[in-house]
Amino acid sequence: MNKQLISIRWEHDRLILLDQTILPNEVKYDEYTTAESVWEAIQAMKVRGAPAIGVSAAYGLYLGVKDLPEGDSDAFHEAVAKTSSYLATSRPTAVNLFWALERMERVADENRSLSVSEVKSLLKQEAEAIHKEDEEINRQIGENLLTLLKDGMGLLTHCNAGALATAKYGTATAPMYLAKERGWDFKVYSDETRPRLQGSTLTALELHSAGIDVTVITDNMAAVVMSQGKIDAVIVGCDRVAANGDAANKIGTLGVSILAKHYGIPFYVAAPTPTIDMKTPDGSQIPIEERDASEVTGLYGTKTAPDGVKAYNPAFDVTPHENITAIVTEKGIVYAPFEKNLQELFYGQHT
Amino acid sequence: MNKQLISIRWEHDRLILLDQTILPNEVKYDEYTTAESVWEAIQAMKVRGAPAIGVSAAYGLYLGVKDLPEGDSDAFHEAVAKTSSYLATSRPTAVNLFWALERMERVADENRSLSVSEVKSLLKQEAEAIHKEDEEINRQIGENLLTLLKDGMGLLTHCNAGALATAKYGTATAPMYLAKERGWDFKVYSDETRPRLQGSTLTALELHSAGIDVTVITDNMAAVVMSQGKIDAVIVGCDRVAANGDAANKIGTLGVSILAKHYGIPFYVAAPTPTIDMKTPDGSQIPIEERDASEVTGLYGTKTAPDGVKAYNPAFDVTPHENITAIVTEKGIVYAPFEKNLQELFYGQHT
Repeated sequence: MNKQLISIRWEHDRLILLDQTILPNEVKYDEYTTAESVWEAIQAMKVRGAPAIGVSAAYGLYLGVKDLPEGDSDAFHEAVAKTSSYLATSRPTAVNLFWALERMERVADENRSLSVSEVKSLLKQEAEAIHKEDEEINRQIGENLLTLLKDGMGLLTHCNAGALATAKYGTATAPMYLAKERGWDFKVYSDETRPRLQGSTLTALELHSAGIDVTVITDNMAAVVMSQGKIDAVIVGCDRVAANGDAANKIGTLGVSILAKHYGIPFYVAAPTPTIDMKTPDGSQIPIEERDASEVTGLYGTKTAPDGVKAYNPAFDVTPHENITAIVTEKGIVYAPFEKNLQELFYGQHT
Repeated sequence: MNKQLISIRWEHDRLILLDQTILPNEVKYDEYTTAESVWEAIQAMKVRGAPAIGVSAAYGLYLGVKDLPEGDSDAFHEAVAKTSSYLATSRPTAVNLFWALERMERVADENRSLSVSEVKSLLKQEAEAIHKEDEEINRQIGENLLTLLKDGMGLLTHCNAGALATAKYGTATAPMYLAKERGWDFKVYSDETRPRLQGSTLTALELHSAGIDVTVITDNMAAVVMSQGKIDAVIVGCDRVAANGDAANKIGTLGVSILAKHYGIPFYVAAPTPTIDMKTPDGSQIPIEERDASEVTGLYGTKTAPDGVKAYNPAFDVTPHENITAIVTEKGIVYAPFEKNLQELFYGQHT
């Protein structure tokens, strides 16, 4: 894969993010040195994808406190909590955001006895660890997904749960990259994923750059390619999985899951364990971000609907666990009954 | 409804078509005086929608022969057949095109004994009759659909089977206009309908202009609005209905029909009888137009996918009759078993 397409880099205490809102037309990296600018990058979807949001927020927290004075420890720890709460408001649905911030806060809390300078250093290390672990998590998800797939299969994915959404490999795309390394040929169909077109601007871009066979379709073509027998499995990412297996993911995933069920096609959710939120009992409890109507009524500055017409723009939907064949994590593959089996994955067999 | 939004006018032997490719940003009418220019307007989708294509083709045939010399009757009738065959190549899926052209050819054939001048006059009258009848057909489809609906309902439609696709009222939209006249309030959701966006640029435009409550959604939001209980019925148009009830319509209709079935929502196909093709036994026999990939990989001149990536762009799909609750024609409402009941509608009970 082209080195240009790494979504997140961390160099010399600066966060460097690929601006994903202007792909594929322009490849532009921006430097971030403040929590506020990271908040804005997440909110504007310059960086997006649950894992990448988590990694960026962790760095954002460090950036927000790294230059604070070191004389007053209480004030420093208060600032850590405040910066974390602030960054948590950038987007509501992806749980990785909260998971990463909580992990950063815990590091600060558990090391109150150390000097502010030492805590700063630990926060930086923790953000780097979250970043680094993501790559390994994704590789392992890819290995686990590969056990469910065969050379030559047709795969459909929605939105971008790809390398651009993560530190490396992506989640839903991880088996595609690993398969490529092994000389397998998948034929991937990528829903363009209106309104923001992450499927055509990002997934198609990264897979095509990596030499993987990818075909872009509009979202409303998923049924027809399934009906033609071109799809052997659907693989999607997720922004939050509830304790019962309900999975929030990019708007349109619910519809794809219903189509897959109709055609008897396996529907796999690639889910790093940080994306599984055991504190949320079911999908109805997952907050769904509603974004500005202008994303639906226009595109690239051109109106696609008349002035004054209403539009609805939920950024995510919830796929009920009944529509999911398996949730594939880095720790293993989880099948129904999901509530019981997710409990076992997280807390062992005896809970 | 705003007079500006009439799709087809016929004035002083000129066909005047609203350019539907630049709505809602620009309202522009073009005059057509040759068969060739009408062919291009149909092919480029400046005029679209099965009924409107039929009407335009009928006028196009008249335009193609009206200035031919009147001395040689055989040469004239040969030109009628040739112009008809030519216009029939403009788009392959909508059967109204072939139906209207055959009707025009029949008028010429049945009046070979008359002078060329008289046949020209009859051809013009026939095109005007096709145009005028369409309005009445649609009004009656609207009346029939209204018997299946109730005040206050939420309706979902896909693409534009609206006034802009027809002479007046539209097919799927006819009950919405009639309900408005009666003071009923429907809440209409319009799928934007990628790649050409007829749902947001055309359906939302004409319904909003008429004061009907319409909300634009991206195609991949249909499942979520259904899951929220907002949709009481789906109404779509069609480009060709086969003898067994399978219905070709704009790409994405198949997916909507599966979602409606999943949620137990009635799925109605508004079908003027000229759109029902009793010579095509089932949906597998309907030719599906595949359009240029650039419609999928870009929008309004901006690339939405990287250079060189593949795209698939079937303009239509086929909804199997099992997913259809009723086919609503101007002559009555047809339920399953569709093959038997369509036979009865066309040929009476004793076939």
